[in-house]
Amino acid sequence: MKKRKICIVVTARPSYSRIKSALAAIQVHPSLDLQLVIAGSALLDRYGNAADFIERDGFSAAAKVFMVLEGENPTTMAKTTGIGVMELTNVFYNLKPDAVVTIADRFETIATSIAAAYQNIPLVHIQGGEVTGSIDEKVRHANTKLADLHLVSSEDARARVIKLGEDPEKVINTGCPSIDLVKEICSEDKLNFDPIEKYGGVGEELDWKKGYVVVMQHPVTTEYQKAREHIIETLEAVDNLGYPVFWFWPNVDAGSDGTSNGIRSYREMRKPKNIHFFKNMDPLDFLRLLKHSKALIGNSSAGIRECSYLGVPVVNIGKRQNRRIRGENVNDVPHHREEIYKAMKDAIYSDKYPGSSIYGNGEAGKKIAEILANSELSFSKTISY
Amino acid sequence: MKKRKICIVVTARPSYSRIKSALAAIQVHPSLDLQLVIAGSALLDRYGNAADFIERDGFSAAAKVFMVLEGENPTTMAKTTGIGVMELTNVFYNLKPDAVVTIADRFETIATSIAAAYQNIPLVHIQGGEVTGSIDEKVRHANTKLADLHLVSSEDARARVIKLGEDPEKVINTGCPSIDLVKEICSEDKLNFDPIEKYGGVGEELDWKKGYVVVMQHPVTTEYQKAREHIIETLEAVDNLGYPVFWFWPNVDAGSDGTSNGIRSYREMRKPKNIHFFKNMDPLDFLRLLKHSKALIGNSSAGIRECSYLGVPVVNIGKRQNRRIRGENVNDVPHHREEIYKAMKDAIYSDKYPGSSIYGNGEAGKKIAEILANSELSFSKTISY
Amino acid sequence: MKKRKICIVVTARPSYSRIKSALAAIQVHPSLDLQLVIAGSALLDRYGNAADFIERDGFSAAAKVFMVLEGENPTTMAKTTGIGVMELTNVFYNLKPDAVVTIADRFETIATSIAAAYQNIPLVHIQGGEVTGSIDEKVRHANTKLADLHLVSSEDARARVIKLGEDPEKVINTGCPSIDLVKEICSEDKLNFDPIEKYGGVGEELDWKKGYVVVMQHPVTTEYQKAREHIIETLEAVDNLGYPVFWFWPNVDAGSDGTSNGIRSYREMRKPKNIHFFKNMDPLDFLRLLKHSKALIGNSSAGIRECSYLGVPVVNIGKRQNRRIRGENVNDVPHHREEIYKAMKDAIYSDKYPGSSIYGNGEAGKKIAEILANSELSFSKTISY
Amino acid sequence: MKKRKICIVVTARPSYSRIKSALAAIQVHPSLDLQLVIAGSALLDRYGNAADFIERDGFSAAAKVFMVLEGENPTTMAKTTGIGVMELTNVFYNLKPDAVVTIADRFETIATSIAAAYQNIPLVHIQGGEVTGSIDEKVRHANTKLADLHLVSSEDARARVIKLGEDPEKVINTGCPSIDLVKEICSEDKLNFDPIEKYGGVGEELDWKKGYVVVMQHPVTTEYQKAREHIIETLEAVDNLGYPVFWFWPNVDAGSDGTSNGIRSYREMRKPKNIHFFKNMDPLDFLRLLKHSKALIGNSSAGIRECSYLGVPVVNIGKRQNRRIRGENVNDVPHHREEIYKAMKDAIYSDKYPGSSIYGNGEAGKKIAEILANSELSFSKTISY
Repeated sequence: MKKRKICIVVTARPSYSRIKSALAAIQVHPSLDLQLVIAGSALLDRYGNAADFIERDGFSAAAKVFMVLEGENPTTMAKTTGIGVMELTNVFYNLKPDAVVTIADRFETIATSIAAAYQNIPLVHIQGGEVTGSIDEKVRHANTKLADLHLVSSEDARARVIKLGEDPEKVINTGCPSIDLVKEICSEDKLNFDPIEKYGGVGEELDWKKGYVVVMQHPVTTEYQKAREHIIETLEAVDNLGYPVFWFWPNVDAGSDGTSNGIRSYREMRKPKNIHFFKNMDPLDFLRLLKHSKALIGNSSAGIRECSYLGVPVVNIGKRQNRRIRGENVNDVPHHREEIYKAMKDAIYSDKYPGSSIYGNGEAGKKIAEILANSELSFSKTISY
Repeated sequence: MKKRKICIVVTARPSYSRIKSALAAIQVHPSLDLQLVIAGSALLDRYGNAADFIERDGFSAAAKVFMVLEGENPTTMAKTTGIGVMELTNVFYNLKPDAVVTIADRFETIATSIAAAYQNIPLVHIQGGEVTGSIDEKVRHANTKLADLHLVSSEDARARVIKLGEDPEKVINTGCPSIDLVKEICSEDKLNFDPIEKYGGVGEELDWKKGYVVVMQHPVTTEYQKAREHIIETLEAVDNLGYPVFWFWPNVDAGSDGTSNGIRSYREMRKPKNIHFFKNMDPLDFLRLLKHSKALIGNSSAGIRECSYLGVPVVNIGKRQNRRIRGENVNDVPHHREEIYKAMKDAIYSDKYPGSSIYGNGEAGKKIAEILANSELSFSKTISY
Repeated sequence: MKKRKICIVVTARPSYSRIKSALAAIQVHPSLDLQLVIAGSALLDRYGNAADFIERDGFSAAAKVFMVLEGENPTTMAKTTGIGVMELTNVFYNLKPDAVVTIADRFETIATSIAAAYQNIPLVHIQGGEVTGSIDEKVRHANTKLADLHLVSSEDARARVIKLGEDPEKVINTGCPSIDLVKEICSEDKLNFDPIEKYGGVGEELDWKKGYVVVMQHPVTTEYQKAREHIIETLEAVDNLGYPVFWFWPNVDAGSDGTSNGIRSYREMRKPKNIHFFKNMDPLDFLRLLKHSKALIGNSSAGIRECSYLGVPVVNIGKRQNRRIRGENVNDVPHHREEIYKAMKDAIYSDKYPGSSIYGNGEAGKKIAEILANSELSFSKTISY
Repeated sequence: MKKRKICIVVTARPSYSRIKSALAAIQVHPSLDLQLVIAGSALLDRYGNAADFIERDGFSAAAKVFMVLEGENPTTMAKTTGIGVMELTNVFYNLKPDAVVTIADRFETIATSIAAAYQNIPLVHIQGGEVTGSIDEKVRHANTKLADLHLVSSEDARARVIKLGEDPEKVINTGCPSIDLVKEICSEDKLNFDPIEKYGGVGEELDWKKGYVVVMQHPVTTEYQKAREHIIETLEAVDNLGYPVFWFWPNVDAGSDGTSNGIRSYREMRKPKNIHFFKNMDPLDFLRLLKHSKALIGNSSAGIRECSYLGVPVVNIGKRQNRRIRGENVNDVPHHREEIYKAMKDAIYSDKYPGSSIYGNGEAGKKIAEILANSELSFSKTISY
């Protein structure tokens, strides 16, 4: 029997963590052929060159596509997407996949969707149906309307995709593949590497062994001038608390310059003593770092998703994760230094929470591979109402 | 007070008819500045160069953008869209509009949507919420999810956009601007020009003065190999009936080659005696031709929309207008020569129907201009459920 | 030993004839791997879909790239080239060739040159050093300045490339590969197929067996408004002469609309009795048709090149082949109906000329393959003066 | 009389200095209209956002175009150029200039050339005819072959452009406009600002008032892996010498990452005590800094050009300025730390050289404006031999 060719487009480091276990399951599935396309910031050193991780993990790219326009502003985000549509169309035309998979809601994921949908290639969307508070929100639901098969991460998301007019039989809750990775490291009882020794980074040497928090805060694109102001609130809170911090630089996104510049100038002027900065980390090591931390601070979706399974307390700042379904481990606060400070303090001195499976039980990758192998693939649909 | 700059992107001849009365109302509105962008097939001779009509009607383009890639297949449709995203982003970046208007559901309209939404420019979508049966379906609802303000053409459409999770206050039924044009010519009691004399075209000289029908049949893109087969059914039916026919060539779209080739080879082999072909016509003259016809045959949305107001009988073939709300003047038939034949015969010998206002009462253009002048413009939203 | 990967980009039907024998020689060469890229109008039905011929000839494409923007005007020619640069860059990046070959001087060939040269891939230019009279002239010499190795078609061309500052050791006269095809059919003593029976076409049935001429006239791009006027002169001359004519439609190029429209309207109004039109023909059959014709009329480079070897009389009209070196078989005339008429008459009643080898002796393909296999490949150079 | 519209495309900070005096002269010329297009890295903060300087100097942009693809490698340089062709074509199509000016030889300048030449807009090339040692070399001469009018900077360059087959009447030595800026500040007898106070930058506080050198070293693209190795040689030499250094970061270019990373890691490991780093500086202030320095070190063309007029000693490293005509102030050395060290030492203790006018006498801007106003503009040419 002819194997189904499944083309998966990874355009950024965080998307890779979201799909890694599915890539592995597809690669070994007897009736599937994996066609991996690495594109966008996943190829760029400035954003941690995910391609290196991916290839080290044993996957090889069927094609690579540079498409990120410089400028990190709304105009270049839009143009990057246009370039992505052109180039990915060409890649799919030459690879001739039986289905294309687009992941989540980053701005450039709609390029994958258009390139597939317009060429009548069945489009599978992973992680639709969630709710946030920026351009991602528009992109995610537009991806849903372009896609033919929806592999969602929670029951809440499934209900929402169906409300959007999709055929319930085409909306399947697999859980989130990112939880599969969490499961892998979940039984380790202490951090098995020294982050600074292994990853370098810049900033202070920390006495982290008695406890530390992790910070990861991305700019919110529709408020992009405020990125700098927002990051300062977090920096002030973190600096005041004086607790050891591992801080991760933001992704490529309009406004990351605001965020990055805010961090840089704060560092130069205030020289905070308790912060060490990383550009990137192997995804499993990052999960280990989270698991053994006192809390995650910022607006990363890892707080909502991975930390729910881990039971790690989260101080979730601002609107970026707005209305994503969350476990009891999440404490939402505004971009306000005192509230952030107070919530961090609470988190550090609270116990861990019990793990939750609202985002799956760690088997998502296998489920996704099975569905891609066995479900009917089509590219024609009409709204259900 | 500073005028609001409203940027409207017209990418095809039919879209122009759908927006003309709104363009006129915006152009004369004291608090609006019109920025008209003419792009795509609207610039191309092969598709009737709508730019010529538009400029003759007194509008001038703030920018023109060539973006249609040759090939008329799904691959070139996708790439055309990517080029459109790149180029329109640049155009909006330099024009700095206060709002951008995207029209309906042609494949390239999502380029306008992305270029505006990603640059945080409030996006207005005209004619969302309808239902059809091809790639348009995906594009239209994706446009809805990218747009901030929805100016729909019927109550049915309004209800559907709200179900898609949009804020009811942002979904306004203005009626369809295409009905405004119909209203202009509705009181004329006979055809005031000779179509063949005025527009030339090719094919037979017809004795049309005692009665004629109009045919307009576009390929349905997701069934694009079948385009040729489908057009043959219609040609056989029309040829058998022997009644005078004015036939319009299809738009640019994947598969129009199938349709066009089908027509060409039928003509050469069978030399039908009762058909005269046109490439394009001034939109008002086209409406006049419809108003005084016995019936419209094919799958044009004009049958659903303009003809409902006119009360002209319509033989609507196949799935292209699938589930669009329609008046009692529409008779739906499959791509089957005998059923088409029978329906045409019924239509020719039936009376006209009373006009319906399900698609508006002819004031849509003015309503649209008022709303664009006065409603709050924003670019941030979240789904309502 | 590792084979050298040679990537050849074919963007149009005429370029294929110019390279076919080299493709064949590379394909069978023990130390070369052929990477064939088919792009541009070579993929389009409107221009005779060369891809079909190419694959039927036993070559398979490593990648295909749609890149022709609709409009056939100077603006779309430029944008097509930009798209070509983007897409071909991506193709070369993923194919990783050891050398890239760009052919001659069509506007889009500079896209191949830039995509290779900027990626530090050794660039081989075929057919540099010639002289014509339009945008081709600029493109050809710019290709020379971007290329590292020059395989030219005549001693005249070799001298010119060296004058342009290239290292004489990198400029090799292989003869023109198009002559290799001519050699294949040169010994056939009569036309072995019926052109109308085999290729259809449109227009009159001709009594061609006692003698016929071939017409092929392309628009000259920098005089693009004049294309229509020019073609009318040729049509008048041909019509007056009344001798049987096989006429070939022009390539994609700015202004081909002027030419095509001129032909269409002339046909409709004047209904010439002695002309049969073809859109395209297998290259070998085209050469057979030339060999057995009384003359070639127009401005095709086949008149200068292939016909010199064949000794067929040529009426070369206008400036398009301006200053290309030519044999005694060529009679140059302006776009003037009477002079064209007179020159055609002379040609028809003159004898054939002896064949000339100014454009090679029919071994160019093999020579090219040998050079690609054995010469040093580099991508760094400076001008020689 | 209708004014001639002159469109000038500035794509990078250094190009602005090369054209500034001409922009000023065109802006005030009674028969010229300036259409300034700011594009590429000239819009990007990472490369010193030249757009800010340009607008502060009183010029306003007719259009801005983001076009730099991230990655800083040969592949993204090529794609950036493709994007540039597409976008600039559109810009010229809408601005309808009477002539387009492209500047010098950066990789993206060929995008300007193609966009103009293919649209039959007369193309003026500034600073053709020079000789260097990397991809610039190919680009510059290809620009010459696409251009219709050549405004060169030296007699040496003029002779070379004529040898390339251009009509001598179309090749005019105006001198280099960058010398016009030098002339403005040439009479100032001491540095009238404190560089660190005014521009910040990072690195050591220097005691520069008794003497300092300036370093500016760009990666050489065809040797792009070596960029890191090369910069280390310079850093070692500079560090050993211990003399105060103002060091400027490199432009966007393939390999600047090699250069930048080399600098960053050297700084972190070796903590040189005598170097202060700047990202950018107002061009006039930069010239002032040069004029009052002991020497310029690196491979900047400012060493060849501006410093010849100033008589400042130059240590020119490696092949980047290979074969550009130079004054007696230039000492060429290879990428070798000891030779660099020795040449720097010689330069610091040598006297200034007398100023030379090989690159003009400071009136180039006015001459350029006059020529653009009065010379015949055409877009058709053939090679002269």
